[in-house]
Amino acid sequence: MNRALPLLLMWLLSYASLHAAETPPNFVIIFADDLGYGDLSCYGHPTIATPHLDQMAAEGMRFTQFYVGASVCTPSRAALMTGRLPVRNGMCSDKRRVLFPDSKSGLPASEVTLAEALRERGYVSGCFGKWHLGHLPPHLPTNNGFDTYFGIPYSNDMDRVGGEAPKGRAAFLDPKVEYFNCPLMRDLEIVERPADQTTITRRYAQEAIGFIRKHKSDPFFVYLPHNLPHVPLFRSPEFEGRSRRGLYGDVIEEIDWTVGQVLQALRDEGLAENTLVFFTSDNGPWLIFGDHGGSAGLLKDGKGCTWEGGMREPAIAWWPGHVPAGKVNRELATTMDLYTTCITLAGGQIPQDRVVDGLDLTPTLLGTGPSPRDTVYYYRGQTLMAVRHGPWKAHFRTQGAYGADSKERKAHDPPLLFNLDVDPSERDNVNAAHPEVIATIRTIVADHESKLEIPPSELEK
Amino acid sequence: MNRALPLLLMWLLSYASLHAAETPPNFVIIFADDLGYGDLSCYGHPTIATPHLDQMAAEGMRFTQFYVGASVCTPSRAALMTGRLPVRNGMCSDKRRVLFPDSKSGLPASEVTLAEALRERGYVSGCFGKWHLGHLPPHLPTNNGFDTYFGIPYSNDMDRVGGEAPKGRAAFLDPKVEYFNCPLMRDLEIVERPADQTTITRRYAQEAIGFIRKHKSDPFFVYLPHNLPHVPLFRSPEFEGRSRRGLYGDVIEEIDWTVGQVLQALRDEGLAENTLVFFTSDNGPWLIFGDHGGSAGLLKDGKGCTWEGGMREPAIAWWPGHVPAGKVNRELATTMDLYTTCITLAGGQIPQDRVVDGLDLTPTLLGTGPSPRDTVYYYRGQTLMAVRHGPWKAHFRTQGAYGADSKERKAHDPPLLFNLDVDPSERDNVNAAHPEVIATIRTIVADHESKLEIPPSELEK
Repeated sequence: MNRALPLLLMWLLSYASLHAAETPPNFVIIFADDLGYGDLSCYGHPTIATPHLDQMAAEGMRFTQFYVGASVCTPSRAALMTGRLPVRNGMCSDKRRVLFPDSKSGLPASEVTLAEALRERGYVSGCFGKWHLGHLPPHLPTNNGFDTYFGIPYSNDMDRVGGEAPKGRAAFLDPKVEYFNCPLMRDLEIVERPADQTTITRRYAQEAIGFIRKHKSDPFFVYLPHNLPHVPLFRSPEFEGRSRRGLYGDVIEEIDWTVGQVLQALRDEGLAENTLVFFTSDNGPWLIFGDHGGSAGLLKDGKGCTWEGGMREPAIAWWPGHVPAGKVNRELATTMDLYTTCITLAGGQIPQDRVVDGLDLTPTLLGTGPSPRDTVYYYRGQTLMAVRHGPWKAHFRTQGAYGADSKERKAHDPPLLFNLDVDPSERDNVNAAHPEVIATIRTIVADHESKLEIPPSELEK
Repeated sequence: MNRALPLLLMWLLSYASLHAAETPPNFVIIFADDLGYGDLSCYGHPTIATPHLDQMAAEGMRFTQFYVGASVCTPSRAALMTGRLPVRNGMCSDKRRVLFPDSKSGLPASEVTLAEALRERGYVSGCFGKWHLGHLPPHLPTNNGFDTYFGIPYSNDMDRVGGEAPKGRAAFLDPKVEYFNCPLMRDLEIVERPADQTTITRRYAQEAIGFIRKHKSDPFFVYLPHNLPHVPLFRSPEFEGRSRRGLYGDVIEEIDWTVGQVLQALRDEGLAENTLVFFTSDNGPWLIFGDHGGSAGLLKDGKGCTWEGGMREPAIAWWPGHVPAGKVNRELATTMDLYTTCITLAGGQIPQDRVVDGLDLTPTLLGTGPSPRDTVYYYRGQTLMAVRHGPWKAHFRTQGAYGADSKERKAHDPPLLFNLDVDPSERDNVNAAHPEVIATIRTIVADHESKLEIPPSELEK
């Protein structure tokens, strides 16, 4: 007995270890809308209190150079869902930057969404929030790999109502639910119109938590894309006047609270150590809305442009026992990499019949190796504006933010060059001093463009 | 015996508690030079790694609305050392903003420095770093309450050498020790000239740690004012090329490392729970030096002006078992309050024969009550430029940063008005909408100025 016990223990341990390795993790991706790089307390905002996201970062990994696939909603979301640059999947345009209520198309059926790829591995998936990849039936979540959907199909400012509603921006700055006629859907049906946005953040989270509880024995993927803090801003009565930052802060603090609710539900269900949770946003802050827009912190400009403020986002990974606690990750990563990483961790297959831009972040997430990413492409619509390679970012074209001076595009030859590690605010153009860096980036661009096939834009249909 | 034991235990506990209450804490104030609000990782800098300061914040309290007494070196340091606005202690001027090597004066003997006030309570005090309150003997630290001094008497860029050294800013951007002839002093003697600034940061910290070890049985006050990251930038060979942020990042990362060394020495000596450590800086980043200057993050402008970037600083308090761990403090506080807080905690007496601007932060530091501060004065030289009251900041005058457009001063009537809690970047002037706030602030200013006696400037002597 005394001699058998250690052997039994060893067998049990090795069985547990093997079993753990064979159990694929669950995935929860929480996606904010128009959140700025500087809008969380753990990213330096002085008056927005985000204790739950701060705690998530303290227990997990906080990225400081994490990028989205585009600086506006539709293409950014398409990049996350397909692991591909929007210029490859048809979900961008130089004419209409996002999908609108009169759009006739959406995500092509030929794209393999993250939910579809995970379904192959036995995952159930739920989408709770803003979709914005097509509001007509073929393009909605439940026809693109998700088992269930509860949310709004496009942005919360679309479907404006006339009559009583103030014109122009005034409707945003003192918003009432009845000024906006955005529908709330369950699966393929409209269940509420206008969507009551005062409670929408917590309802998304409640639905997600319900899904997690229901599927605690299945491998699951929860996609939780909040439609806030995109204007118009709403929060529940419990968060009214809560934040020193005013309405915008109330909205962020309510989202933060729901993040705490989701993490607590995972802990309560014993799922924390088997669930990778990732928090980020679709693009930078919409600066033209004053204090109803966020802050990109020390980064330049915001939503809609290819300066850093448009495309670099807060990003926090949490997976207790796997992602090291309290780590700041200063390497490059993108939302497209989440696609590849999740499928890889699930033991699935990355589509081989097309270019997938996502790379597997597992080593840098687990702290066992560097990020595989050394290059970031900054597209505006179908136009390549800038390329980052290592610390260097070359702007071949620049243009202002969404809704501001967006018509004035400037071409740069040689490109403007910034060392983002040294100069994250893009203040000092150093192109004259580094022709060799520009030559390297030109080679990268030539190779990238030689392999690029641009399909017709779905956003122009 | 069984019945006596609980009584004995209770007596021992009550004795220990009484003894603890009677033991005044030690104080360590670590002061950086020209550090920007956005330059630490825990304040959102993407590429400067500050694990020790981040850890200090995780174990302590991080302030997000902490102010200095002026936006340039000499008056800011005078405010910290005297608890008084520089306009009251003679250490500011509209003509010469700081002391220079040809200055004939310094801190008046009539001022009661923090070291002098603590000496009355039996403290020993050491100053290790940049003084800049007068380099002639009457004004040096050991004639102003400190038992020992090791450091440079004014800024590290003063006493430029001609000959080989490049002219103008070029000397700063590729600095060599021999371009600068700043002396290093011990007590009243010059011990090294030029001061070897490559090792100066770690030498200050080593001296401070030696002092802590020597005086571990005394109540002590360590003032550790680093002369970096003020240009010219230097770091030791161990930190060369360490930071993604380049030379400036290397400098910050070496300061961060020395903070870790100081905290570890306190732990090693068993002093951690009886020592309040406070980290902050004298003023905002010197932006005109490009990547040799820091970042104010989302705050406007930098060193030398009265926009937020000039006068709001990172600030971290650490006192295990007393200051709550992991707390973000969004209330108002200033360096002058450190003066009053330390003297109060030491059981000392705040000077009663003069106006002391500092307030006792003990309740907000210990998490037992709010900050007593609701008003902040922003002086430039002897001129009141702006006043903050609660979230509101009124700019009666504005002027650009030090070395930039500093000659162009604009008066505003009504003053520009910003709600800093909502609009920390001072983007949206809302003076037209809030005349009642402006009226309140005008009353505060009138009361302030009616009691103000401005002595002759020591900086013009």
